[in-house]
Amino acid sequence: MEQRLTIVALGVRNLEESRAFYGVAFGWSETKSSNESIAFFQLNGMLLSLYPRDKLAEDAAVDPAGSGFKGYTLAYNCRSKVEVDKTINYLRLHGADVVKEPQEVFWGGYSSYIADPDGHLWEIAFNPYLKLDDQGNIIPE
Amino acid sequence: MEQRLTIVALGVRNLEESRAFYGVAFGWSETKSSNESIAFFQLNGMLLSLYPRDKLAEDAAVDPAGSGFKGYTLAYNCRSKVEVDKTINYLRLHGADVVKEPQEVFWGGYSSYIADPDGHLWEIAFNPYLKLDDQGNIIPE
Repeated sequence: MEQRLTIVALGVRNLEESRAFYGVAFGWSETKSSNESIAFFQLNGMLLSLYPRDKLAEDAAVDPAGSGFKGYTLAYNCRSKVEVDKTINYLRLHGADVVKEPQEVFWGGYSSYIADPDGHLWEIAFNPYLKLDDQGNIIPE
Repeated sequence: MEQRLTIVALGVRNLEESRAFYGVAFGWSETKSSNESIAFFQLNGMLLSLYPRDKLAEDAAVDPAGSGFKGYTLAYNCRSKVEVDKTINYLRLHGADVVKEPQEVFWGGYSSYIADPDGHLWEIAFNPYLKLDDQGNIIPE
């Protein structure tokens, strides 16, 4: 397998609410392939999709029951601490649940977390050890 | 916010088992920044990380309790149905739990799912409507 991924699919309980959250709070635009059943956002080389949670479980042929911590997080890395603060403030103003305020963390970064309407966690962080190119891609070591 | 993500972090119960799974079944190599506490894999413009589940919850300042369907999936898109079959066979031989055998699906694709040692779900699929470049990045519409 090549070292890559194609899609991160988030199961959501209310598709309209979630697409509004990513459209307004994140300010992201959907692709033309999005429709009333599913939303796609073109990210760096991959897609984020929003799909009803029960249908996502059905697609994977697994029991949809589940609760609590989802056991994973996504990260959006900023290019400075100031950008982290600005991003968190903007997200908060637009309805995001800030679960961890921006703060210095033990590994040398500056990190915060928000939850989307379904509790999908996004870390908004500055990591001085990660180098981003002009498109926001991580430059390989 | 730019339309991108930087890291997908998977919470794992046994880091050695999980890094062996991604190293052997997926055949992926870790970055130099990986150490005994965390594993990183350079993907297309972003990183996949493996980190102890309880520590990931602690980092996000949320309760680590959680069970059942995680409410999200990751996808690895192949360039043909044959590649899906070969990939699933290889993964199965190397210990992956195949939760959905490759099959035609209603949206016109050919799809299967495997679970990693912690139940993180990966869809292994061929989607005739998604165009991949030579590096495996999705070509924007």
